[in-house]
Amino acid sequence: MNFRIAVVGTGAIGSYYGGKLAYHGDDVCFLVRSGFEEIKRLGIQVRGKKESFRLAKVRAYKTTEAIGPCDLVLIALKATNNDALPELIPPLLHENTALLTLQNGLGNEEFLARHFGAERVLGGLCFICLTRVSPGVIEHFDYGCLTIGEFTGFPKPRTYDIASEFKRCGVVCNVVEDLMRERWHKLVWNVPFNGLSLIAGGITTQDILQDDSLRLSALGLMDEVIDAAGTCGNDLPANVALEQMKRTETMGACKSSTLLDFEAGRTLELEAIWGEPLRRAQAAGASMPQLEQLYAVLKSLNGRCE
Amino acid sequence: MNFRIAVVGTGAIGSYYGGKLAYHGDDVCFLVRSGFEEIKRLGIQVRGKKESFRLAKVRAYKTTEAIGPCDLVLIALKATNNDALPELIPPLLHENTALLTLQNGLGNEEFLARHFGAERVLGGLCFICLTRVSPGVIEHFDYGCLTIGEFTGFPKPRTYDIASEFKRCGVVCNVVEDLMRERWHKLVWNVPFNGLSLIAGGITTQDILQDDSLRLSALGLMDEVIDAAGTCGNDLPANVALEQMKRTETMGACKSSTLLDFEAGRTLELEAIWGEPLRRAQAAGASMPQLEQLYAVLKSLNGRCE
Repeated sequence: MNFRIAVVGTGAIGSYYGGKLAYHGDDVCFLVRSGFEEIKRLGIQVRGKKESFRLAKVRAYKTTEAIGPCDLVLIALKATNNDALPELIPPLLHENTALLTLQNGLGNEEFLARHFGAERVLGGLCFICLTRVSPGVIEHFDYGCLTIGEFTGFPKPRTYDIASEFKRCGVVCNVVEDLMRERWHKLVWNVPFNGLSLIAGGITTQDILQDDSLRLSALGLMDEVIDAAGTCGNDLPANVALEQMKRTETMGACKSSTLLDFEAGRTLELEAIWGEPLRRAQAAGASMPQLEQLYAVLKSLNGRCE
Repeated sequence: MNFRIAVVGTGAIGSYYGGKLAYHGDDVCFLVRSGFEEIKRLGIQVRGKKESFRLAKVRAYKTTEAIGPCDLVLIALKATNNDALPELIPPLLHENTALLTLQNGLGNEEFLARHFGAERVLGGLCFICLTRVSPGVIEHFDYGCLTIGEFTGFPKPRTYDIASEFKRCGVVCNVVEDLMRERWHKLVWNVPFNGLSLIAGGITTQDILQDDSLRLSALGLMDEVIDAAGTCGNDLPANVALEQMKRTETMGACKSSTLLDFEAGRTLELEAIWGEPLRRAQAAGASMPQLEQLYAVLKSLNGRCE
């Protein structure tokens, strides 16, 4: 039987991971909300030092009705556009359709569970540096690893099946037993690097590492996230801050997705990365003074780019 | 005997306070480092809703040698230009010359004491909103009150004499018994409002007050400064944060001097307002995580406007 995949959102993340699957022969339909003609005409191109490929023929659709029921839906809209999902998703569903959100931060799985049932929902964390230069044209800077897990608990057979399919298509893909813990784990990186890269003047990950004061700020924010994760019942390994710093050192000089969003005049993913973690931490009794300040400043900047 | 006054620095602060004294008949010589011809030709103009005056004839000089010894020197350079003072000040000194620094933050009195002797040094805190539009042209938005004190301790007869002279010339001027305590008191305002106004996107004091998250951030920073002041031996009244918030509410929508500096491409007064308080607090065993993050971000922005 044909395994049908839909990709909702053809920004950098949707184009890349959906593109990889389609390039290796999977049956992938893309919902394209902007740049439809370009993607139809030119396909999807991924350009980078470590990897380049071109998907010449993209099965692009303007509506999810035209796509119809699928077995797996990759959700790659910005979290700020989640309010479009209750209309977009239903035509893609059959009884066993799995929804895999590739979005950043906290709250996206919960949103999907609320609207479409928790059993359907998986979450994926993308460790990757890329940017969409224009519709269908993706610049790939570094990494590409994907970590997936079930929203409702331990991995199921389908979790491993999905991971296997990504692996077959050349994506390093891990299955995790505790998705929320991984979400917090990733926030240890996103909270400082996404935030500071923007408010410190539009700088790269390397600029942050090389400035002693910003590096200290990043470590301070990491400690707050690690403490909050623990308070919320997601203990992280003791060395996670150092491990993330080391990993960042081996990355190229990346612009964070938040900085890229700001530069492109897009709304920032404020709530998923900073607002929701802060609210969960405070509800559990943890205080996050540095994150709170960062969140306030980012909210103010967000108002100014809209 | 003629009481001679020199004003070093004809930015907004030097032009305003020196201009007030000269306008009311004092013998005031201005060291003008930029815009000499304009000030000679057009004088000093202060324009504002609450107060406007024009000093038509300004005794402007290009060097302090040409001014010669004075009884009182108002120091109104940006703190970032302090390294020019060891050359500029000596020609202005006689045995009893008093040096009154009107600069922001911590460390300026100590700098003067180190170079010219502690006995000479007074500090003044300017509670005022103004900006230099062009050489000699000062826009006055609000306030004007000056608080002065002795660096070495309690007020002396000269402290009251200087305050009287300011009062005679229409400047509300208070003498304080503990200058360092006042410096910390003023930092309770400058640390949050000067910093956040810049990093939150170039906003006014009113924008900060009206944004719930930024207002909370400002209060958090105020608490850190109050704690640090206490740890450094400068206990502030319990209600100082609320009192400052209330005062700020009655101000117009002011741009902070730090934001004005940034917009004009000038170096920021980083060390006096954030760096030095942080170092003193840390040396005394206080931690200031929010201020530390703010300082790191401002340092990074500062590098970017130079």
